[in-house]
Amino acid sequence: MTASIITITREFGSGGRTVGKMVAEALGYDFYDWNIVEKIGKETGFATNFIEENSEEQSRFAGMLASNTFGFNLNEQLFEAQGRVIFQLAQKGHCVIVGRCADYLLRKDPNVLSCFVYANEEVRKQRILQEYGETEVPIEKRLKEKDKRRKAHYQYFTARKWGRAFYFDLCIDTGSFTLGEASQLIVFAAKNFEPRLRHTKED
Amino acid sequence: MTASIITITREFGSGGRTVGKMVAEALGYDFYDWNIVEKIGKETGFATNFIEENSEEQSRFAGMLASNTFGFNLNEQLFEAQGRVIFQLAQKGHCVIVGRCADYLLRKDPNVLSCFVYANEEVRKQRILQEYGETEVPIEKRLKEKDKRRKAHYQYFTARKWGRAFYFDLCIDTGSFTLGEASQLIVFAAKNFEPRLRHTKED
Repeated sequence: MTASIITITREFGSGGRTVGKMVAEALGYDFYDWNIVEKIGKETGFATNFIEENSEEQSRFAGMLASNTFGFNLNEQLFEAQGRVIFQLAQKGHCVIVGRCADYLLRKDPNVLSCFVYANEEVRKQRILQEYGETEVPIEKRLKEKDKRRKAHYQYFTARKWGRAFYFDLCIDTGSFTLGEASQLIVFAAKNFEPRLRHTKED
Repeated sequence: MTASIITITREFGSGGRTVGKMVAEALGYDFYDWNIVEKIGKETGFATNFIEENSEEQSRFAGMLASNTFGFNLNEQLFEAQGRVIFQLAQKGHCVIVGRCADYLLRKDPNVLSCFVYANEEVRKQRILQEYGETEVPIEKRLKEKDKRRKAHYQYFTARKWGRAFYFDLCIDTGSFTLGEASQLIVFAAKNFEPRLRHTKED
């Protein structure tokens, strides 16, 4: 039986997004990445640039937001809205969802194949430069900051340790395979996935 | 190009040993698991039951051994000898090595595909009872103690955190696939492995 939903949690620059797209194409599934942002915008009324900035990474203004005078946390509201959107997508099924803590949000859904995609820093630096080009900020710093903010966001909302294999059905180092091969591994796994065997991904 | 050496690090009861055997058979590779014990015995003169007890898990007498009056630590000597044997096997190549910190010992070898195999406690309990049957010690306790000792041994000798995905090319949850499918994933990965891309598995 083929897994109906595939989540891809990935390190910045690992190529996980591209891998997810390839998997969606191979299986004829819908692909959700940044387009989730629009859906969340419709759901909540948050501006898309606010969502983009905060839906996957700890905000640069996390402290300020956390202690605002209205007594509620915008980031937590955003996370809740994101969760609602992701649950809706999962109910429809036949989709690949990249990032946005979907692995955690859907941890009790037996139809989910959850994947983690990562690579070492050198590999990711090269890929980031190839894909997004140079900026004023040196690549070292860009990677470090992005890693830190993504990890902080993930750990805050999921209470999981970033990079632990146990939460995933499959983890792939894209430093050791091409993105095409990584997607083939996931497609094979998705096609041979046995929901009857799958356990809840808890600590 | 096919990876010449495959290491399989695994949780107790995850079926990693069986998966390794299937991979070795599919690729026509040598398979090393407990038979490494004999080789280490010849290399060192240690008794095989001492090696069995200490080559993968923290000894029940770890404290005693660490503070013996001869001023050296038998466990560390054993680990060194084990390393020599594993380096010899890796030089020959075309083999699957299960456990014994081979992932760490061979972390700088670009020809190694390193895999981690795990499953949640319930899945592992069932498999342990199927494979080894009941004993006087309740299954809960057997699993807990074995996990604790294996993790302690691994972390002591490798300074790595048990279960982090980043050290491995591929991590597979055998709670979500059959052992046959897990071995097929590894065989596919081994056949599509690109040593040119592989980076040193360091922290």
